[in-house]
Amino acid sequence: MTHKHPPRPEEYITDVSVDCVMFGFHDFQLKVLLLKWPGANAWILPRGPVRRSQLITDAAIDMLLTTTGLDDVFLQQFQTFSRAEERWRSGRTHETPTSNPHLAHSLISVGFYALVDFGRVKPSVEGTFQWCEIADLPDLLFDHHDTIEAALLALRKDLRYLPIAKLLPGKFTLREMQKLYETILNREFDRRNFHKLLMSYDFLTKLPEKKTGSQNKSPHLYTIDFDKYESALQDGISY
Amino acid sequence: MTHKHPPRPEEYITDVSVDCVMFGFHDFQLKVLLLKWPGANAWILPRGPVRRSQLITDAAIDMLLTTTGLDDVFLQQFQTFSRAEERWRSGRTHETPTSNPHLAHSLISVGFYALVDFGRVKPSVEGTFQWCEIADLPDLLFDHHDTIEAALLALRKDLRYLPIAKLLPGKFTLREMQKLYETILNREFDRRNFHKLLMSYDFLTKLPEKKTGSQNKSPHLYTIDFDKYESALQDGISY
Repeated sequence: MTHKHPPRPEEYITDVSVDCVMFGFHDFQLKVLLLKWPGANAWILPRGPVRRSQLITDAAIDMLLTTTGLDDVFLQQFQTFSRAEERWRSGRTHETPTSNPHLAHSLISVGFYALVDFGRVKPSVEGTFQWCEIADLPDLLFDHHDTIEAALLALRKDLRYLPIAKLLPGKFTLREMQKLYETILNREFDRRNFHKLLMSYDFLTKLPEKKTGSQNKSPHLYTIDFDKYESALQDGISY
Repeated sequence: MTHKHPPRPEEYITDVSVDCVMFGFHDFQLKVLLLKWPGANAWILPRGPVRRSQLITDAAIDMLLTTTGLDDVFLQQFQTFSRAEERWRSGRTHETPTSNPHLAHSLISVGFYALVDFGRVKPSVEGTFQWCEIADLPDLLFDHHDTIEAALLALRKDLRYLPIAKLLPGKFTLREMQKLYETILNREFDRRNFHKLLMSYDFLTKLPEKKTGSQNKSPHLYTIDFDKYESALQDGISY
């Protein structure tokens, strides 16, 4: 749905598409970006075609740029989905496309997830997108509920290897970092144990400043030494 | 190469294949299964086509059954690979197939890895397969070196969620279980810490018997309570 004209068949890999689960994190909320399927009252994940001349990762990058205007997103391939041809032939007429049959009929879809601060994203398809709470999704086409569930599971498993701390502002409190992990993992950590764990890595630098404006305390601010952080990610950060 | 006749184009998804990195573990050696590419002095991973009427996991299962005769393998999708069309057109003539153009020209390949005890595997394509040491691979077509490297990385990352203990015999010593992890991760663990960690889970049952025939000691034998093991895997087993 990112193309005004249907792609010429010879230019694209038939039956294959890329889907992107774009996780947005902002103010300790985790959401996912959905697009309106043209001509139907239903939603899909951003989906795009793959040119024969390009790699799938580049297809995903192109598609995200077209739909969201973002080009520096952390993008991770996580799972490839397939559906048997009979299935969409058997009366799922609401999936019949009003445009771009290529994308509607794809049998194989390579799933990527992305992590962004959704305060920064201005999707370029105004009026036809929404950031949705993961716990409260609308009807989705193409088994995209399953895709989102699989992406969330993959994100949680990958968390120890992902530079998610990049989603934090330049200066943050340990409590804010804990909240980031708690939001994505949907569970709580003991404050003391979590802080002890964080401090056992050497990628956090304590700043002389404190956070002001908090009700009772003025907690210390920290920043990340990204060289040390990247090398810690090589081995995996426990949580 | 698992088909005597080239598939009829309308039956298969064009440009898509499944590749399988079959890791074999036996006597604390980790190997990978390679097949001879027909008509060339080069090797490939087992590769198969995907029917339009089937899911990719079923395509991988079918292909493994055809090439190895095994039908109860632990199979895990790990990454999808692509190559831009120009690349195989640009003079890589050694990749020109002698049969089955479908598989030779696939642009998208969904990678699975499997874990088996290679003592149990009798590939059904005698004379054209070999179990290779990962550190000493021959020339491989289709970027299959990269595929194996990516599969090994995925296996190591997935290890805490994988039922790899199923590769152990019914009764085993803690030292044997440690060796399994050490072989796959290619690193050593402190014996005492590793044993303490294992015993912190409740899926190991100590048997009254001891292992005989060892040189100096008669270490205790253990067995796995697979119900408890599966539930421990849900959260991930640390190592």
